[in-house]
Amino acid sequence: MQVISFLGPKGTFTHEAANMIGDNLIPYCTIPAVLESVENGESLYGVVPIENSIEGPVGITLDSLAHKFDLKISDEIIIPINQNLMVNPGTKMEDIEDVYSHSQAISQCREFIVQNNIQPHYAVSTANAAKNIVGDKTKAAIGNSKAAELYGLEIIRPNIQDTDNNETRFVVVSKDDHEPTGTDKTSIIFSIYEDKPGGLYNVLGIFQKNNVNLTKIESRPSKKGLGKYVFFVDFKGHRNDELIERIISEIEDKTYFLKVLGSYPEFR
Amino acid sequence: MQVISFLGPKGTFTHEAANMIGDNLIPYCTIPAVLESVENGESLYGVVPIENSIEGPVGITLDSLAHKFDLKISDEIIIPINQNLMVNPGTKMEDIEDVYSHSQAISQCREFIVQNNIQPHYAVSTANAAKNIVGDKTKAAIGNSKAAELYGLEIIRPNIQDTDNNETRFVVVSKDDHEPTGTDKTSIIFSIYEDKPGGLYNVLGIFQKNNVNLTKIESRPSKKGLGKYVFFVDFKGHRNDELIERIISEIEDKTYFLKVLGSYPEFR
Repeated sequence: MQVISFLGPKGTFTHEAANMIGDNLIPYCTIPAVLESVENGESLYGVVPIENSIEGPVGITLDSLAHKFDLKISDEIIIPINQNLMVNPGTKMEDIEDVYSHSQAISQCREFIVQNNIQPHYAVSTANAAKNIVGDKTKAAIGNSKAAELYGLEIIRPNIQDTDNNETRFVVVSKDDHEPTGTDKTSIIFSIYEDKPGGLYNVLGIFQKNNVNLTKIESRPSKKGLGKYVFFVDFKGHRNDELIERIISEIEDKTYFLKVLGSYPEFR
Repeated sequence: MQVISFLGPKGTFTHEAANMIGDNLIPYCTIPAVLESVENGESLYGVVPIENSIEGPVGITLDSLAHKFDLKISDEIIIPINQNLMVNPGTKMEDIEDVYSHSQAISQCREFIVQNNIQPHYAVSTANAAKNIVGDKTKAAIGNSKAAELYGLEIIRPNIQDTDNNETRFVVVSKDDHEPTGTDKTSIIFSIYEDKPGGLYNVLGIFQKNNVNLTKIESRPSKKGLGKYVFFVDFKGHRNDELIERIISEIEDKTYFLKVLGSYPEFR
């Protein structure tokens, strides 16, 4: 049976995403550990978050795929993020003094936390926060309903995130990417020459003249100093398509670093 | 005397940056609180971090300047970030079981933490981490030397960050930006029409044809769904320069949202 590793612990949103592609799931405690488990063959697939529509990119996932691992993206999963305020059974809103969660979840519920005058604290994950508050009625945790279930907590306020449109995109990573399906996306990373002006402009021009739309463009520091970036770009098409093949080879000519992260079916 | 608010507590890197522009410093506990103190006139200037060369943008600063406050960037400060491992006097390396710091500092020292087999924990700030470990010899904190000084801790290992080139850029925010000095930079934010392809390409083309170099380009989620962005762009020149005025008005025609965050002297 195919082993799937995911960013644990159990009861996180990543667990929910991983569950959509299989049952034989093993949690790992960091994103690099998930990727390493795929690289060394302990698991066939790894599931990690790559971006959230409110908080932006997950830096460690992008950086690891760019610089540390030679793995491919073979699929993507997008799930809506509904944050819930969870408490020990019998707790009332006015009992709550402190709330625990992952920093991204705290950020996503900032207005609710301020309005209710609760002190926020960071935990390693939403599930960890849930686990940590068990038995203490002055504390609450923010996370998904799976975590409440897992640790016997009650959801006292559902959907407390500040804005709708809150969704997280996860990638499934493996040693090879996906074969063409007809509705595919391709992810690439590149760095431009710092000393030549208009580097990014020239690369975007290649997509423009070929009428290929970008579905994502994300800048990340190259870790070589302020103002130096790598760009993560997603676009429609499979790297085996003739047009995409040509585009990639043109980009290669205009950049000093290019890595194709993989082609995979678009999530719907 | 001019009051300067900064992201506290005392002993953080932001404190160090704020100290470079004045002495009458008041710490605030969140980035929005610093900005609000400037908006309501409690302080004349506010100092907040905006980007780090390793970890990338400080999302809450960018989002607050884009959407929540009508303030200007009037100056920038760049300081090198040297992370230190701090302990209670007399503690040995082998005594340390846990290490506390801000999530960005933990990320910046990931390799050191793994090599030394210490359990990382997140704190609200580097200074808060230092304060929290006072008196416990199984615990260490990561932060700057000011924090060690402030809480009577010893630096047991200096410069433990994974990579060099680690510097943070801070912005000084006020009600007006800076008058022209001859070596200025301008920061803008814009959103492109989602339904028109090549939006970013067209905006970059305006800079290209006018031979104006970008010193920064950063994408942020627009919070309206995956794949929808606002772009933060910095470039050389002052918004009062004739050329820059023209560029800004051309960009206005090609975007549905444009905000000039301010012009200010380039840090050297």
